[in-house]
Amino acid sequence: MKMIKQHSKKTGLPPGTLLHVGNERREQAKVTLVEYTADKCFEKQSCNIQEFLQKIPADTVTWFNIEGIHDISLIETIGKQLNLHVLTLEDIVHSGQRAKFEDFGDYLFIVTKMLRYNKELHQLQSQQVSFVLGRGYLMTFQESDWDVFEIIRLRIRKNSGFVRQMGCDYLCYALIDAIVDHYFEILEHFGDKMEELEEELLTHPSEKTLHKIHIIKRDFVLLRKTIWPLREAVRCLQDDESELLGDDTQLHLRDVHDHTVQIIDTLESSRDLVSGMLEIYLSSVSNKMNSIMKVLTLIATIFIPLTFVTGIFGMNFHTMPELRQGWMYPWGFWLIIIGIVVAMAVYFKKQKWL
Amino acid sequence: MKMIKQHSKKTGLPPGTLLHVGNERREQAKVTLVEYTADKCFEKQSCNIQEFLQKIPADTVTWFNIEGIHDISLIETIGKQLNLHVLTLEDIVHSGQRAKFEDFGDYLFIVTKMLRYNKELHQLQSQQVSFVLGRGYLMTFQESDWDVFEIIRLRIRKNSGFVRQMGCDYLCYALIDAIVDHYFEILEHFGDKMEELEEELLTHPSEKTLHKIHIIKRDFVLLRKTIWPLREAVRCLQDDESELLGDDTQLHLRDVHDHTVQIIDTLESSRDLVSGMLEIYLSSVSNKMNSIMKVLTLIATIFIPLTFVTGIFGMNFHTMPELRQGWMYPWGFWLIIIGIVVAMAVYFKKQKWL
Amino acid sequence: MKMIKQHSKKTGLPPGTLLHVGNERREQAKVTLVEYTADKCFEKQSCNIQEFLQKIPADTVTWFNIEGIHDISLIETIGKQLNLHVLTLEDIVHSGQRAKFEDFGDYLFIVTKMLRYNKELHQLQSQQVSFVLGRGYLMTFQESDWDVFEIIRLRIRKNSGFVRQMGCDYLCYALIDAIVDHYFEILEHFGDKMEELEEELLTHPSEKTLHKIHIIKRDFVLLRKTIWPLREAVRCLQDDESELLGDDTQLHLRDVHDHTVQIIDTLESSRDLVSGMLEIYLSSVSNKMNSIMKVLTLIATIFIPLTFVTGIFGMNFHTMPELRQGWMYPWGFWLIIIGIVVAMAVYFKKQKWL
Amino acid sequence: MKMIKQHSKKTGLPPGTLLHVGNERREQAKVTLVEYTADKCFEKQSCNIQEFLQKIPADTVTWFNIEGIHDISLIETIGKQLNLHVLTLEDIVHSGQRAKFEDFGDYLFIVTKMLRYNKELHQLQSQQVSFVLGRGYLMTFQESDWDVFEIIRLRIRKNSGFVRQMGCDYLCYALIDAIVDHYFEILEHFGDKMEELEEELLTHPSEKTLHKIHIIKRDFVLLRKTIWPLREAVRCLQDDESELLGDDTQLHLRDVHDHTVQIIDTLESSRDLVSGMLEIYLSSVSNKMNSIMKVLTLIATIFIPLTFVTGIFGMNFHTMPELRQGWMYPWGFWLIIIGIVVAMAVYFKKQKWL
Amino acid sequence: MKMIKQHSKKTGLPPGTLLHVGNERREQAKVTLVEYTADKCFEKQSCNIQEFLQKIPADTVTWFNIEGIHDISLIETIGKQLNLHVLTLEDIVHSGQRAKFEDFGDYLFIVTKMLRYNKELHQLQSQQVSFVLGRGYLMTFQESDWDVFEIIRLRIRKNSGFVRQMGCDYLCYALIDAIVDHYFEILEHFGDKMEELEEELLTHPSEKTLHKIHIIKRDFVLLRKTIWPLREAVRCLQDDESELLGDDTQLHLRDVHDHTVQIIDTLESSRDLVSGMLEIYLSSVSNKMNSIMKVLTLIATIFIPLTFVTGIFGMNFHTMPELRQGWMYPWGFWLIIIGIVVAMAVYFKKQKWL
Repeated sequence: MKMIKQHSKKTGLPPGTLLHVGNERREQAKVTLVEYTADKCFEKQSCNIQEFLQKIPADTVTWFNIEGIHDISLIETIGKQLNLHVLTLEDIVHSGQRAKFEDFGDYLFIVTKMLRYNKELHQLQSQQVSFVLGRGYLMTFQESDWDVFEIIRLRIRKNSGFVRQMGCDYLCYALIDAIVDHYFEILEHFGDKMEELEEELLTHPSEKTLHKIHIIKRDFVLLRKTIWPLREAVRCLQDDESELLGDDTQLHLRDVHDHTVQIIDTLESSRDLVSGMLEIYLSSVSNKMNSIMKVLTLIATIFIPLTFVTGIFGMNFHTMPELRQGWMYPWGFWLIIIGIVVAMAVYFKKQKWL
Repeated sequence: MKMIKQHSKKTGLPPGTLLHVGNERREQAKVTLVEYTADKCFEKQSCNIQEFLQKIPADTVTWFNIEGIHDISLIETIGKQLNLHVLTLEDIVHSGQRAKFEDFGDYLFIVTKMLRYNKELHQLQSQQVSFVLGRGYLMTFQESDWDVFEIIRLRIRKNSGFVRQMGCDYLCYALIDAIVDHYFEILEHFGDKMEELEEELLTHPSEKTLHKIHIIKRDFVLLRKTIWPLREAVRCLQDDESELLGDDTQLHLRDVHDHTVQIIDTLESSRDLVSGMLEIYLSSVSNKMNSIMKVLTLIATIFIPLTFVTGIFGMNFHTMPELRQGWMYPWGFWLIIIGIVVAMAVYFKKQKWL
Repeated sequence: MKMIKQHSKKTGLPPGTLLHVGNERREQAKVTLVEYTADKCFEKQSCNIQEFLQKIPADTVTWFNIEGIHDISLIETIGKQLNLHVLTLEDIVHSGQRAKFEDFGDYLFIVTKMLRYNKELHQLQSQQVSFVLGRGYLMTFQESDWDVFEIIRLRIRKNSGFVRQMGCDYLCYALIDAIVDHYFEILEHFGDKMEELEEELLTHPSEKTLHKIHIIKRDFVLLRKTIWPLREAVRCLQDDESELLGDDTQLHLRDVHDHTVQIIDTLESSRDLVSGMLEIYLSSVSNKMNSIMKVLTLIATIFIPLTFVTGIFGMNFHTMPELRQGWMYPWGFWLIIIGIVVAMAVYFKKQKWL
Repeated sequence: MKMIKQHSKKTGLPPGTLLHVGNERREQAKVTLVEYTADKCFEKQSCNIQEFLQKIPADTVTWFNIEGIHDISLIETIGKQLNLHVLTLEDIVHSGQRAKFEDFGDYLFIVTKMLRYNKELHQLQSQQVSFVLGRGYLMTFQESDWDVFEIIRLRIRKNSGFVRQMGCDYLCYALIDAIVDHYFEILEHFGDKMEELEEELLTHPSEKTLHKIHIIKRDFVLLRKTIWPLREAVRCLQDDESELLGDDTQLHLRDVHDHTVQIIDTLESSRDLVSGMLEIYLSSVSNKMNSIMKVLTLIATIFIPLTFVTGIFGMNFHTMPELRQGWMYPWGFWLIIIGIVVAMAVYFKKQKWL
Repeated sequence: MKMIKQHSKKTGLPPGTLLHVGNERREQAKVTLVEYTADKCFEKQSCNIQEFLQKIPADTVTWFNIEGIHDISLIETIGKQLNLHVLTLEDIVHSGQRAKFEDFGDYLFIVTKMLRYNKELHQLQSQQVSFVLGRGYLMTFQESDWDVFEIIRLRIRKNSGFVRQMGCDYLCYALIDAIVDHYFEILEHFGDKMEELEEELLTHPSEKTLHKIHIIKRDFVLLRKTIWPLREAVRCLQDDESELLGDDTQLHLRDVHDHTVQIIDTLESSRDLVSGMLEIYLSSVSNKMNSIMKVLTLIATIFIPLTFVTGIFGMNFHTMPELRQGWMYPWGFWLIIIGIVVAMAVYFKKQKWL
């Protein structure tokens, strides 16, 4: 339900007022700087950002990563220094955005959602990551202190792949690609859960199964809401005519676009499959219930006429010849009883009720 | 059901006949004038509107707010003075419009729906707000005396944010933004309600829960009907090429457009979630019923054969050797009874019915 | 079900053969002529149409209204006189058309469906109205003798509104607007019915309620089929570049288009609401049934063990010490009975079954 | 289920290999030639096609109708003579095509599906009809020996309508129009069936009704699959810029297009109505079942406590004062019994269960 | 569930790192070379690919087929030799792609999914086939060692059809056509299964039927996910303006496009039919259950009042005149019993419950 709880704090403030809207607040925003060319690579934490921003080197790729978007003054400093539009700053600090892409001429602005499945808390975690891609620099703003970018950092340090040979735009692509690749992991996690559920459904369906199915359904609704807009954003980015994006990077972005389409396809198919599981659950519960009721009712149906027979012979009429006949008790009575049971059993068998 | 009750009063009148169609009628329409530049700010209520309209100052922003669209003669006066099209006036006084945007060349006309949740009446309230944005002035027409613009007025008075530095178009944007921001509050309210419902669903679902679910579903249908057209209207406004709209304002309108898209996304996801809740409710009710019926039927199924046994020993046959054996009563009889009960319990246990 | 019964009579005839397809046949087609300028207005019934058609005055607005499209020879005469295309004539006399707009260069051809709710027959009535808008004249062809145009006639006679000041195109707009305005009345009628139904649903749902819901659903399907194509037709008319349509009329048509969109919105929302009502009905019926079955089963469940106890004491064993103890009857037996009842009641209470 | 059984015979053959795929095989393909101008008309069966093809007269309309597309060598001869593309020939003999239109420059190729309801076999029959419209000739290829073109032949013979005055394109339009007109007959047939079903639903719903509903639903799925692509095909034909199509014919094709749209509308509405019927059926069956169970359970619920009372008085306690009181039997006992019955009846009445 | 399990192995690797992702791994990749002109044809297995790639003959069609995409070094060699883009190579070795088409200028890249139904394993098998169509050569990369291309090889060897007369583009078309033709076989297989299911549904529906229905539904979801993107890919290929594709080949590709549309149509219709089958199953199960319960409840309902009667005559009142009357036992008692049974039977008959 968290999906609709993030906006109202901001209601009533003038546009351009920066107010952080989101969940997590680290003590202090952490700024990490990575600077590299094909030859050398340089990393620094918690640097004096203002100094660096004043003279961004033209010949290197400079990547600022800001963890913690609640430090409004920091964001404002960066905004002033880099000449970012007021709405960009607002979108950065306000964590309830849809994924989107905007071309401000001097820089490109991309908002994405980073997802991971926290295995300790058994919980899906989401945070907003904003990209500002300018001439010679890339800034990434993330809400909290976990990310899926470690592999990119490793590639930069180890100079594996092409990342060190390419510019900022390629780095931006690589990071978005890392985020999208992580969506596949989330899908796999859900794939495993669905397999377990299907197993459970066939062997021992219970009311818990129903709740699991509904939790998965709800998670799919939220995932869809998160991933769907990214497709459009990446498509716009890929088609953008800004000179900040190289042709080759746009070719790579087409690949990312294909991946988002594939994820959405998979999500839609999974939703169909989960709906199918719900149908199976409901009809198997109803079938089980029906078969219990059938057996119980059969037992009652057999014994009620028998009780009627004993009722007859338990009557106190002064003249009941049947009661006096000696052969009547063990033979007559039990024959009637067994006769009734057999007749009913045969009938039920014939009707295929047993 | 109110959604389809507002038009027929007007049926049969010639287009251009102004007739107020709507619910609330304040005694007298209240006109408020706010005039400001970056330096000064001036506010006046119930002014002589005609005088002002004759010489709208060119260098200030002039905002007329008319509360109460039932005062036809006032609206007609304004229309004549400002040269508004007959259809514009008709749309202003007729409160059943969809949100829309129309460019009449000399002025822009925007219709929106303002929503608030009245916490005292536990009721969603809606009113139509029409904007006429002309050269140097902005007119807003609202149906009743509540609005969500107070925060904008405060900003103007206190000169906070950019509003005093910008023109009429920015003011128009700010007001629309205030309306859209308020939609988020409505969504949050529904989010809270849905959380309560989910809680209720898991702990003590009752027929009331079903009705609550259906009321939320219905409210979502109405919300969707209200908000959906606004998205298109804002998109048209944002893309309009009128010189009445500054570039920066259109950038801000893109932000509003993003917000409406986000609201619609959230609404659609919420509808999915509510449908899921209905499914949970129906199957949990059915499960509860089933488990009751199962226990009750089990009890009957156990006792009916036992009653048959007592029936046997209650028969009046003159020669029933079983009745005479001394060991038969306490031991034989109770062993049979206990035997039957145990056998059935074991069988039911084995079938996992207990 | 009438929606699919109107075409086959015509199957096999060459296109261009005029054959009336439809329900009602008035004895004789009734031709009404209204001719007006801003200054004067002239009305005539059952005139000699041929004479008039030969010299349509250029400076006045001439409106021919033909009631009864079964008079093939009349239609053919008009067609020849005004140079109408064979397919136009066919569409006029064949009443099963979808709403559509076609520009034939010399004249515009519009097909609409006029609806009204006949309060005496409790029935929705529909008839096709075709418009031929040419230079200086407007011809309307209707199937039967009721229409919703009386208000326009009044306006022409009384010279209220703009209609007398404007040309044929405005008259055409005014008539279409009258038809669309009438759709709102139909919607209101259904709105009232839905409110009644909702009331009935909450107080005394019965099988009749179900049928009423289904009849409304079916009516909505038919309404949707009728109104949906009109939206497209009006949009095409509004965008048409024919010189027969004035700019101002097209502005007014935009208004009509907005109305049809609004009607379709309302219709879709209403369909959603009716589906919700069906769900409420089904679950309330099922809830009611469940609560009946629960009470009945509870009664049976309580009495079956009691009957077993009486069965025990009704057995005829020669040695049953319980039967001889004097305290056994009133005290022992009734304590057992009351004990069982209380135990069960407590258990059921604890399980919240009571 | 036949819809997916027609392709695999062809799998693996090179494109351009002509292999007839379809159901019916007449002994020999039947070729009919109709040649006409405005003045004269000439008909011939089983002519030597090759001779005719070599010199197609330029000033007459020549219509070849080939019944039986299994005669591969004939098709190949025609193809070679008229210079038809290999894929055209393939589509002609392979009867599992979707309706489509293709412009090959020299000729236009149209595939349609002809439907009829065989009243003797109570079965919907379908066959593929392909049109090749070239300069001065029209070829139609049909699978089997029934068609819906008799009315067009009559018109040609009798020179009724415009067909004799017009060219090949008009003939082509007339034949397609005949096919589409026949769809209306099919729809009417289903309309009648639906009316019967609705009647049956209200008076005596049974399991057969359910099967009938499902058969109609399935037929609608198949009809939709058949008719839907035709709409697109006709639209393309109507917009085609080939000089083989006259302007007037394209105007007539717009009419055919309107008809297909109308048929699809009707089909969609009918599907909605049938779904509604299924809902009514299911809830009326469930209602009927519920009311049976309620009455049966009521009877049991009334008699079980009564049986308990007789059980009490049937006990064999040595000291039961009630049994000895003289007034106890007829009066006391029956008062208790009647009292219980009345109390229960009042309670059930109050709860509105009776 | 396999659909969402193929991506994560690759997460974190730099783009351009070739890592095979997929299921099957043959020991060694098998390269087959087919070279042909209209006159001669030459086939070779496991050739030294590098040598051939260095001088691809300009005047012949050269088709390399690589079975086993796990041989990364081979793929890399080919990539370097033919100047393929890094992303192309990645897509080739990564088997979880959607069907797609990309024009890289020098070559065209097509990804498709090949399906077959393995009759021994009763399982649907899928593998990715990538096409690289360059100047004078076609490369196909397949995952495992089965394919549906044998028929094309035969045609090349036997010089049947046009394939030997045409260029690489036609070969590429022929192979895609073979894949699409095979989809029809899969559909037919499902068509057969659905017919069996329908038979089973009408004669002896069981819980197994339900599971079969759900398996078919799931398979349709997966098929749809596989085939749907191919339609778009073929459409793009057909419209592509690359000089690598001849006009005639594009005409043939239009045919393939028609086939994919037809397959998707059939798939959608089949999904509708399967949903209908589920509805029939559920309502027939519920009907069967209902009729069982009705009979059982009827039996109980008849015997419970009878048991009450025997209870009455089994009471031990000292003064019960009924017990002493001699006519009471055989006649009176049995008349009451038979009377009750007949009365109930008549009532049930009248209510149509029997």
